[in-house]
Amino acid sequence: MYPVIEIFGPTIQGEGIWQGSRTMFVRLAGCDYRCRWCDTSYALETAAAKRLTPQEIVSQLKILASYCKTVTLTGGNPCVHMLEPLITTLRAEDYEIHLETQGSLWQDSLKMVDMINLSPKAPSSGMQQNQSTLAEFVSQARSLQLKIIILTDADYAYARELHQQYPDIPMVLQVCNEPGQDNYESLMSKYRALVNKLTLDSSISDNVRALPQLHVLAWGNRPGV
Amino acid sequence: MYPVIEIFGPTIQGEGIWQGSRTMFVRLAGCDYRCRWCDTSYALETAAAKRLTPQEIVSQLKILASYCKTVTLTGGNPCVHMLEPLITTLRAEDYEIHLETQGSLWQDSLKMVDMINLSPKAPSSGMQQNQSTLAEFVSQARSLQLKIIILTDADYAYARELHQQYPDIPMVLQVCNEPGQDNYESLMSKYRALVNKLTLDSSISDNVRALPQLHVLAWGNRPGV
Repeated sequence: MYPVIEIFGPTIQGEGIWQGSRTMFVRLAGCDYRCRWCDTSYALETAAAKRLTPQEIVSQLKILASYCKTVTLTGGNPCVHMLEPLITTLRAEDYEIHLETQGSLWQDSLKMVDMINLSPKAPSSGMQQNQSTLAEFVSQARSLQLKIIILTDADYAYARELHQQYPDIPMVLQVCNEPGQDNYESLMSKYRALVNKLTLDSSISDNVRALPQLHVLAWGNRPGV
Repeated sequence: MYPVIEIFGPTIQGEGIWQGSRTMFVRLAGCDYRCRWCDTSYALETAAAKRLTPQEIVSQLKILASYCKTVTLTGGNPCVHMLEPLITTLRAEDYEIHLETQGSLWQDSLKMVDMINLSPKAPSSGMQQNQSTLAEFVSQARSLQLKIIILTDADYAYARELHQQYPDIPMVLQVCNEPGQDNYESLMSKYRALVNKLTLDSSISDNVRALPQLHVLAWGNRPGV
């Protein structure tokens, strides 16, 4: 049984290199981190979650849209749970599986995930990223991208160092979406500043992108999108 | 000598599956189409353009940023020119070359382009897309994506048909950016409508995305971004 906060879609993936792609989301409760600017803090507590079996999760996905064959597992950090039964069931149903995590907890069932959106936390999160588990993700994952949320100069420096360590992995620098500042002017002003930084930085390659969260631009900060 | 409207960057690619990536742009004058909602009509006339050799173009790119190794050739339609000398020079300088065109004019030098952003014109453009040349692009290009600008239901139907013809090619449905309506509210309201259509459409696969133009959201309709 998994503690499920929400199952929703089809909608678009608002983050990273698959931005704009159609997917459904399964948001599991629980997280081993407490980031200062967490934009999905409603996923931190497991008490309010529904308990569902893998087959019940698939049934709900099919009710939402049988034609959508991409599912994104998110949280919280979905890796606080033993994901093997859920991933195996999704694969048997022929879903393409994407997964979003900070990369703090590895488990072997993640090798079956098609695309890991790995989001190590930079200093402004207040968290201390586990770099050796991160290295395990990089070496074991089938396919992954790095997504770093940028609020401060120290965050940018962290991202640059990580890019220099893993230059071949696509990296996305993402505008930080602080609660209460999910409006267009604030997001775009931060985005322009981030683009300025990226485009003037001779120490990184063109394998690093800058992106806002598209779903927040379209709908603001709220569950279900 | 090429008629150059502008050389600018590094900035971000605002369109398609490479959205957010760092690139410089070379915009060549001239186009064989006259789309109703053209957002770069200043590139239609060759009279105002500077005439530059391939080596002069490379020199300007290096002055802008020697560390940026991605260049996007755009227009107008850059394929109204014989591109072989320019592409050969850019390759010799180790640039990754992207090219934006509607796919109306094929030439063999395009095989040297790393990524073609192919944007066939749907009915609201007022243009009649040449489907056989389009097929030549699909069969000959090294790598390509299809980008369809969507304003009307007929445009959407055109895109769907094209996707069904070429299901394995990544397709991006892009919000139409009509002159004078490059504001956030208008663009996002169109974007949400496009997402609604895409996410409810059981006749297309998850290989189709919906995206706005990121550079227009960030800076509005203007040259040099």
